[in-house]
Amino acid sequence: MSEKLDQLKEILGEVTDLRNASAVLGWDQQVNMPPGGAEARGNQLATLGKLAQIKFTSDEVGKLLDELKAEYAGADPGSDDDAALVRVTARDYDKAVRVPPEFVAESAIVTTKAHEAWMEARQKSDFSIFQPHLEKVVDLVKKYITFFPPADHPYDTLLDDFEPGMKTADVKVIFDNLRPKQVKLIKAISQSKQVKDDFLRKKYNEKKLWDFGVNVVTKFGYDWSKGRQDKAPHPFCTSFGLNDVRITTRFEPDHPTAMLFSTMHETGHALYDGGSHPSYERTPLMGGASLAIHESQSRMWENLVGRSMPFWEHFYPEFKKTFPAQLDGVSLKSFYRAINKVEPSLIRVNADEATYNLHIMLRLELEIEMVEGKVAVKDLPEIWNTRMKVYLGITPPNDALGVLQDIHWSGGAIGYFSTYALGNLVSAQLWEKINKDIPDLDEQIRKGRFDALLTWLREKVHVHGRKFDPQDLVRKVTGSKIDAAPYVRYLTKKYSEVYGL
Amino acid sequence: MSEKLDQLKEILGEVTDLRNASAVLGWDQQVNMPPGGAEARGNQLATLGKLAQIKFTSDEVGKLLDELKAEYAGADPGSDDDAALVRVTARDYDKAVRVPPEFVAESAIVTTKAHEAWMEARQKSDFSIFQPHLEKVVDLVKKYITFFPPADHPYDTLLDDFEPGMKTADVKVIFDNLRPKQVKLIKAISQSKQVKDDFLRKKYNEKKLWDFGVNVVTKFGYDWSKGRQDKAPHPFCTSFGLNDVRITTRFEPDHPTAMLFSTMHETGHALYDGGSHPSYERTPLMGGASLAIHESQSRMWENLVGRSMPFWEHFYPEFKKTFPAQLDGVSLKSFYRAINKVEPSLIRVNADEATYNLHIMLRLELEIEMVEGKVAVKDLPEIWNTRMKVYLGITPPNDALGVLQDIHWSGGAIGYFSTYALGNLVSAQLWEKINKDIPDLDEQIRKGRFDALLTWLREKVHVHGRKFDPQDLVRKVTGSKIDAAPYVRYLTKKYSEVYGL
Repeated sequence: MSEKLDQLKEILGEVTDLRNASAVLGWDQQVNMPPGGAEARGNQLATLGKLAQIKFTSDEVGKLLDELKAEYAGADPGSDDDAALVRVTARDYDKAVRVPPEFVAESAIVTTKAHEAWMEARQKSDFSIFQPHLEKVVDLVKKYITFFPPADHPYDTLLDDFEPGMKTADVKVIFDNLRPKQVKLIKAISQSKQVKDDFLRKKYNEKKLWDFGVNVVTKFGYDWSKGRQDKAPHPFCTSFGLNDVRITTRFEPDHPTAMLFSTMHETGHALYDGGSHPSYERTPLMGGASLAIHESQSRMWENLVGRSMPFWEHFYPEFKKTFPAQLDGVSLKSFYRAINKVEPSLIRVNADEATYNLHIMLRLELEIEMVEGKVAVKDLPEIWNTRMKVYLGITPPNDALGVLQDIHWSGGAIGYFSTYALGNLVSAQLWEKINKDIPDLDEQIRKGRFDALLTWLREKVHVHGRKFDPQDLVRKVTGSKIDAAPYVRYLTKKYSEVYGL
Repeated sequence: MSEKLDQLKEILGEVTDLRNASAVLGWDQQVNMPPGGAEARGNQLATLGKLAQIKFTSDEVGKLLDELKAEYAGADPGSDDDAALVRVTARDYDKAVRVPPEFVAESAIVTTKAHEAWMEARQKSDFSIFQPHLEKVVDLVKKYITFFPPADHPYDTLLDDFEPGMKTADVKVIFDNLRPKQVKLIKAISQSKQVKDDFLRKKYNEKKLWDFGVNVVTKFGYDWSKGRQDKAPHPFCTSFGLNDVRITTRFEPDHPTAMLFSTMHETGHALYDGGSHPSYERTPLMGGASLAIHESQSRMWENLVGRSMPFWEHFYPEFKKTFPAQLDGVSLKSFYRAINKVEPSLIRVNADEATYNLHIMLRLELEIEMVEGKVAVKDLPEIWNTRMKVYLGITPPNDALGVLQDIHWSGGAIGYFSTYALGNLVSAQLWEKINKDIPDLDEQIRKGRFDALLTWLREKVHVHGRKFDPQDLVRKVTGSKIDAAPYVRYLTKKYSEVYGL
């Protein structure tokens, strides 16, 4: 191995250590930290972030990368891991050095204030409190774009941070194709006989639900010697290396089974995070190809597996035995229909599989239009409500349940909502291929066996870490780029069963 | 404030952030980390430690300190906090730069191997496995001493790392004075009627003991909005800033009430760690004056408070109600005698108040003699057993229960055992002064009130952080240097009551 590559890897190892340490501090902050610890924790995270940034954007790294790019110019990053490391690191480096430290500092100040304003605005359901701050955030985002070479569309620059290589035009094509089909499907569902799910709203014992979820994801293949589950205000997955990947969940008394599905969802992320090739540990190749590919894994285990009939054919008898009073007289079929109930609703995070993507499309359109300057921040509430009516047939009674519901924009995170919807599409695309490669997969799941599925994901997706761009990975695995058709087929089939369309 | 001081504080702030981050990672390692996380965690801790060291020993810090030492040459570090910061930081810096990085790296390798060998040796009770490694450790320690200017005694250099300003000769005088009195006391106790404590070995519910301990230390003044308690293999206290100071405890089925006393002990450390003046946050002045002063706080809350009659006059009725079956027919007096039972035993960590210091003196003598070259590593087992017989009247049946019992030497930690015993002495010394200043302290404790005690400790000890050297602090607070007499008086009085001497 090249001596320069060794030098680079040593620096990248330390950068990764610093980022992993930050992840531990972040996990602790959500899971354990007493309120008094907040200020010191902020200092610690700021210092670690700054040192990681300084180390990564040093001239030394730049020089090594220039030399290594020349050295690996002829190698194929698709087959040569070292070439892939150079490619991915050079891309990260190029992005990191383009953004001036003063801009990073200014962003931190603007978004901290915007976050506070958003909290107050949402609480009072008063968009005018948030508006001036969001205007500043949008200005910052537009300025951020100017640090990068002009792209086909200014939104490309933002999207690329989360979906490397993905273009706004590609996403538009995918979504334009998807939108009418999802709208049509929802209309058909709304005209069908409605599904009963009152038994999912009863009281469920938290500990028993937790244990059931633990049992399920253990069967999925989550290795408790390399992870753990804790409670947190918002479920998430985080990793401090390939062999310490943790998940969190929460209990919502009004919606108790959400805990079970969140455990499966986060396990999907965790299996991906822990599945990079062992040689990628402490390098930028560790992790997921993109947010969409990550979401494809979480949504697959949560929905394509966890809300499927074969899954519940296996688990329902045990689940019913665990909650006999709540599920008294509820057949497997009724239960299956209830957990797949479709109901246009105001809040994205509570949306079902059929309506979820429409929430995303609405946000994506608004983000693109804001970046293009076609939509002014002050007009957002009205546009939001109008489009909610068109897409989902409902109108938010106030902005807290409308344009103010999500935290993302307050933090300057513009550019990644689409990854949630793309993740759904990719999950179905992979699922079709998996079912071709493992023809008896349904039968295996019916028996509570997930090993062949996990092995497939490990070998085809997880092991590659960040080596491939998302579109390339999907093409490599399925033979085509990201495509909405499999997801439409999946939804149509599922809801034909559930609603007898 | 001097501009240079600002510059120094900024760097020290980042160094503190890195060390606090390491502390979070260390806490997580003991409390939460799945086994798979060990290797990555080792890398993270190594990187954070290295970066903190590089930052702290930089030429920039050295230059700033030189200039600031000149600037504050006339100021009194006892009254001027900035002068104290310069003094303490300069001392830390001087120590840190004397030790070459290669030595630190070599030490890490030698002690890692020694630790593994010690684990095997203890498990097999075979000192010969550990012997060659301990010989290397002692060589390293002797080499370490050569990096520093010659002291009155070579052991002074080691001791000074834990007890700044303390001399080996001082410790010897203190212990030489103490030893015969403790030996005599133990002899008298052993000739008295023995205490019954079988009811302390019954089954106690872990959760109820935990809750009882939480209730007790809440009354002590431990603020749960600035801390938390978790389970860990070995109880400890750690802090990530003044407002996030955490404790851990463990449940030992064979010795259930140990959990309660460990909670009180660690709370003593925690109250001290969280009690530095708020302006010391993110500076080297935050923390404790020395290990002995730290131990004086933990032992005070555990023993002088937690094993006292007034304490149990308040808490025993509730304790008995919590464990009615276990304590059926056990009077307050019998309970009090049981928790203060004296029994010469082989294992230091399980030793009672009367015998504990003798364990320490044995180790201190051996450490000094090893450093002086008067005792060879190979002869340790024999010397250990001989002195155990002299001091405590018992002989270890094997080396696992003798010379191999403690982890410290395997890690190169030679020089701090004495701080445990000194802590006991200081706790009694402070206690006499506190009782002079708060004449009705017993009465307050009998009512479950600890606020005046905590306020006294906060104002006289905690608030100063690392500002004063331990001897200076004790003299400032009590009027005399560290002295064994109050501890002997305390033990004699207590055991006269317990054993009717």
